[in-house]
Amino acid sequence: MQRDRERQGMAKNTNMRWRLPLVCLLWELAMIVLFGVFVRSGAEADAHWEEEKRDMNLTSDMENDFYFRYPSFQDVHVMIFVGFGFLMTFLKRYGFGAVGFNFLLAAFGIQWALLMQGWFHSFKDGKILIGVENLINADFCVGSVCIAFGAILGKTSPIQLLVMTLFQVTLFSVNEYILLNLLHVKDAGGSMTIHTFGAYFGLTVTRILYRPNLEQSKDKQGSVYHSDLFAMIGTLYLWMYWPSFNSAISDHGDAQHRSAINTYCSLAACVLTTMAFSSMLQKKGKLDMVHIQNATLAGGVAVGTSAEMMLTPYGSLIVGSISGIVSTLGYVYFTPFLESRLHIQDTCGIHNLHAMPGLIGGIVGAITAAAATEDVYGKEGFIKAFDFTGVYQTRTPSIQGGFQAAGIVVSLLMAFAGGAIVGKPEGTPASPRNCFEDGIYWEVPEDEESDVYHMHNPDKPASP
Amino acid sequence: MQRDRERQGMAKNTNMRWRLPLVCLLWELAMIVLFGVFVRSGAEADAHWEEEKRDMNLTSDMENDFYFRYPSFQDVHVMIFVGFGFLMTFLKRYGFGAVGFNFLLAAFGIQWALLMQGWFHSFKDGKILIGVENLINADFCVGSVCIAFGAILGKTSPIQLLVMTLFQVTLFSVNEYILLNLLHVKDAGGSMTIHTFGAYFGLTVTRILYRPNLEQSKDKQGSVYHSDLFAMIGTLYLWMYWPSFNSAISDHGDAQHRSAINTYCSLAACVLTTMAFSSMLQKKGKLDMVHIQNATLAGGVAVGTSAEMMLTPYGSLIVGSISGIVSTLGYVYFTPFLESRLHIQDTCGIHNLHAMPGLIGGIVGAITAAAATEDVYGKEGFIKAFDFTGVYQTRTPSIQGGFQAAGIVVSLLMAFAGGAIVGKPEGTPASPRNCFEDGIYWEVPEDEESDVYHMHNPDKPASP
Amino acid sequence: MQRDRERQGMAKNTNMRWRLPLVCLLWELAMIVLFGVFVRSGAEADAHWEEEKRDMNLTSDMENDFYFRYPSFQDVHVMIFVGFGFLMTFLKRYGFGAVGFNFLLAAFGIQWALLMQGWFHSFKDGKILIGVENLINADFCVGSVCIAFGAILGKTSPIQLLVMTLFQVTLFSVNEYILLNLLHVKDAGGSMTIHTFGAYFGLTVTRILYRPNLEQSKDKQGSVYHSDLFAMIGTLYLWMYWPSFNSAISDHGDAQHRSAINTYCSLAACVLTTMAFSSMLQKKGKLDMVHIQNATLAGGVAVGTSAEMMLTPYGSLIVGSISGIVSTLGYVYFTPFLESRLHIQDTCGIHNLHAMPGLIGGIVGAITAAAATEDVYGKEGFIKAFDFTGVYQTRTPSIQGGFQAAGIVVSLLMAFAGGAIVGKPEGTPASPRNCFEDGIYWEVPEDEESDVYHMHNPDKPASP
Repeated sequence: MQRDRERQGMAKNTNMRWRLPLVCLLWELAMIVLFGVFVRSGAEADAHWEEEKRDMNLTSDMENDFYFRYPSFQDVHVMIFVGFGFLMTFLKRYGFGAVGFNFLLAAFGIQWALLMQGWFHSFKDGKILIGVENLINADFCVGSVCIAFGAILGKTSPIQLLVMTLFQVTLFSVNEYILLNLLHVKDAGGSMTIHTFGAYFGLTVTRILYRPNLEQSKDKQGSVYHSDLFAMIGTLYLWMYWPSFNSAISDHGDAQHRSAINTYCSLAACVLTTMAFSSMLQKKGKLDMVHIQNATLAGGVAVGTSAEMMLTPYGSLIVGSISGIVSTLGYVYFTPFLESRLHIQDTCGIHNLHAMPGLIGGIVGAITAAAATEDVYGKEGFIKAFDFTGVYQTRTPSIQGGFQAAGIVVSLLMAFAGGAIVGKPEGTPASPRNCFEDGIYWEVPEDEESDVYHMHNPDKPASP
Repeated sequence: MQRDRERQGMAKNTNMRWRLPLVCLLWELAMIVLFGVFVRSGAEADAHWEEEKRDMNLTSDMENDFYFRYPSFQDVHVMIFVGFGFLMTFLKRYGFGAVGFNFLLAAFGIQWALLMQGWFHSFKDGKILIGVENLINADFCVGSVCIAFGAILGKTSPIQLLVMTLFQVTLFSVNEYILLNLLHVKDAGGSMTIHTFGAYFGLTVTRILYRPNLEQSKDKQGSVYHSDLFAMIGTLYLWMYWPSFNSAISDHGDAQHRSAINTYCSLAACVLTTMAFSSMLQKKGKLDMVHIQNATLAGGVAVGTSAEMMLTPYGSLIVGSISGIVSTLGYVYFTPFLESRLHIQDTCGIHNLHAMPGLIGGIVGAITAAAATEDVYGKEGFIKAFDFTGVYQTRTPSIQGGFQAAGIVVSLLMAFAGGAIVGKPEGTPASPRNCFEDGIYWEVPEDEESDVYHMHNPDKPASP
Repeated sequence: MQRDRERQGMAKNTNMRWRLPLVCLLWELAMIVLFGVFVRSGAEADAHWEEEKRDMNLTSDMENDFYFRYPSFQDVHVMIFVGFGFLMTFLKRYGFGAVGFNFLLAAFGIQWALLMQGWFHSFKDGKILIGVENLINADFCVGSVCIAFGAILGKTSPIQLLVMTLFQVTLFSVNEYILLNLLHVKDAGGSMTIHTFGAYFGLTVTRILYRPNLEQSKDKQGSVYHSDLFAMIGTLYLWMYWPSFNSAISDHGDAQHRSAINTYCSLAACVLTTMAFSSMLQKKGKLDMVHIQNATLAGGVAVGTSAEMMLTPYGSLIVGSISGIVSTLGYVYFTPFLESRLHIQDTCGIHNLHAMPGLIGGIVGAITAAAATEDVYGKEGFIKAFDFTGVYQTRTPSIQGGFQAAGIVVSLLMAFAGGAIVGKPEGTPASPRNCFEDGIYWEVPEDEESDVYHMHNPDKPASP
């Protein structure tokens, strides 16, 4: 009886036939209307460019921002859709959901982010003028949603995810505006705005959606051999392209160059300390795929703020090494603690991959900024690196360091508040028996086992 | 008896031991001879570049076309080989054929395309002079063959595919010449030349190769859980890199920039409407992987012609939204209709992903061109965007729109005629029992099932 | 009894709990110290760039080397980590080891390579100044280790791999210095320095680690259906991005452009001859995935030295065609011969993919250099292409050809000597029962079979 009722409840709860289409279509319609009213191509992507070029005294089409940033944009794009999407396919029965829902929320999120960030940063004469840098920033913003998705992976419906995306993108943009414009903080790789904010946002949501009986679906929370290999595709693309992520919106020239080098160094170091601690923390000294898939990336998160500063390659190695250790320890000790004591069920362990390394990144950024000198940066380089112009002309490195630290606190507060606001109305969490299971929201192909059999017996009839 | 004869027939038909090697080696030899006679590196890839640069009054190596187009070229390259190749691995027992035959036909096709397109477009003093733009165009041309391959996937031998490639590349180049040079039509992303032409070509071929008893292999026409994830790799790379596809050969500067932005917007919108209709058209509201893998890409196809024009971001959202809807409806309603009534067996549903969105793309291009004004484009931008110079100096937007529309019709006619010519001599189709089965043309590893077993019992002896 | 002792030995041998962490952490610490003493960002990645730019009379940030090379760098990066990593996942039970150990050794190797190559090539006033070109060169250097890893894949512990990486990177840098600086040899794509050196190094190591009873693990040396598809991801990324590999560190302008075109042509031809011979050498004419996964890449190796020279597109087709044939023949005839007669157990067949094509590449490079004329290259182009300036002002093409040939011999000798030095102290090889098995060094998810079962029966309880 009890069981039957639960089943019926399930069936009702999870049938999205009208709700999902309605949400998608109405929201897309809203996007079209808002884009129609507000969004236009910026000067460098407008057919008036020929005249613009002359006005700006540019001699070559190469000076178009497109050529400075488009290769990095494509790398970031791959990180968001293949990187995050496949990283989450490690669950044995949730591959479609991982890749597919990530695809859905990111595709909606980038449209809404173009608007939200546009109103704050690219608004001119009533229009939002977009170019390649806006596309990168929209991807960045959505990255923070993908991070939050990692905490609740397998436990929500696509509609809940879309609602979360709407709210999170909105708050992300507000938080970003406070940090970049009001506090005048540097955060090109988003240690604070993307990782710290996104992770604590997601952790707050998953805390509110706490499911006491989740261990009922424990058998589905693990990986199988092939799903771990699919996840490694995500890991490697995130790892390889992170230098592009951290340098994508840095200033042209030396800043982009430096960001890429520092991130490359940090990530390389992170792999070694992750492997070391993964083996050390296991009785038999074996390596754990969960750590390799995730903690190796902490080095990219942890230099997100400072990579474009004069962190130096050895500074990057230090930061990368520490973050790999912290992140691996997190998987072994913190995640079980968070679940059992704080009732935070963090499917992908984003606390270890994004939250803690994000905080490290914010702190390292504050220290690096506070330690900056004209000697190290050069007179012009110093002003350019921290944008100490206009009203910020008199800001000193130590004051900048203070504002950077304030940026961490603001991001944390915004994340907690935002996560709480979004988590509440998501309503009663679905039954644990619906978790981590593609069959709930997807048409799943019938019977793999018998296929495997027939695959190697092509001469036998397919069905008796 | 009947059965035995069929078996023997099969064995003869499908043994390629001498025929495939002969075709490959002779054709490659022909390529070497023709390249020896005709193909040389263009000025920007020739060691005389230093002098050339001075003659052209260029101050920097950066002005070499390589730096404007190489990143986009590599993205397009990934779309052709990984994108199309893996998109087609969704079949449970045809992964080797999907990736491997796509690899074979594309590798041959790009060589033949360099020659064919070279004769039409880069021929100078008896030589074809090639540069990075030729490489992109060769990849584009082969893209149309990969599309056609989708219709006949699993039903032909590699030799038949090579023959089709030879013919299709030839006709593609003729059609492209008619459109771009004679009709002076704009089609940088190939809605007409690549998608419409490629799709209707392939559909005509598969119509001629109609197999009445194909339902005998119905059990192999589906996917399994992992094969759907492999296919998503293809989908995502096509989706992410489509902005590069549509902007790769646009004019330097604003046109490349604008193309990328418009395509990005169109694709994002397309994902939402695809998800909406996929859920809506299914009784239980579940999402169907076939739609997510394919219809989400229709937005890229549908702005192929117009992305480099002043389509505007909201225009792109509209086009992307519509094409996602049309494509998903196609998978649910048109594909079964085409098979049962018109005897068109379209394995990958290219009618929904390429044919219909390609037509939409052509029409949107014609309308966008016809609606162009000097006000919107600027005086210089207007002339540059549509190349209204020389003999085309007097062409008006509305006339251009007419020619664009004519381009659609020409592409359709060329596709039907070409497909019919190629389909005919392909001969009697093989038995349905040979379809969708890698074991026919590939060495397939022995027995997965028992491996899976032993994988987790490393201490037990492998065989009794 | 014997068996029990062997088991105990195994258990001791393969438990890395303290040894792996110690090696990783101590070595990373050494990297941090050495980077702290030696490594700094180069002028183009330093905040002083603004002043530097003025000194160098550069008008645009675009002149920063970052924009000339970063897209190619990212492609090379993908080749090293995804390309080599996934290419080796073809083994049915060694996917974690293939991707994971490749990740580990490459992450350590690039740090050590930045130092070693830095001391030889970028050392100035006591500091190594690094930029994007150093990152590419470090990736290249590690590429040679990934190649050697292919020979011993599945037969060594991660600690042995790290030791090999340390030595091989060191010797690679010495060999590279001899070739590039002392012999003044051209080798931008590394036919000699990367492929010939790396492959014969690895083959020497695997010869020394010869295991007589390896056929005991024969059942694990094969592939399964899905593992072959994972391997194709590696193959395709190597194939697609090889034009970036061979052009990444060529001179700006025409040389990068030409390298990419020649490599593109060579690889396309190689696919056709590989398919031809794969089918021809098999009784039933079926294609073999091993050949398609590997021999199709030989064309990239074989033009590594000559791609940036005026090899011409048709010359590239010839070289690519030949190398595909040689490589496929190697898999069918040489590999079994090497194993049975010379006791060289070459897991991935690197002799066919890197050693022989590498030698072809060296020879083709020597011939192409010897055949160079001022007529073909132009007066300035000739000097620039071969760097015939300073003390090399009087070098003629034929002398250059001789030095190129000497480069091959030096690389071979260094590889044999180096491999012997490294192979010796690696000690007694582990038991064959520990080979090709992820369970030895990795936590492997429990029971795939029953998961597959439950995957399609979500309503049944997970365990009885």
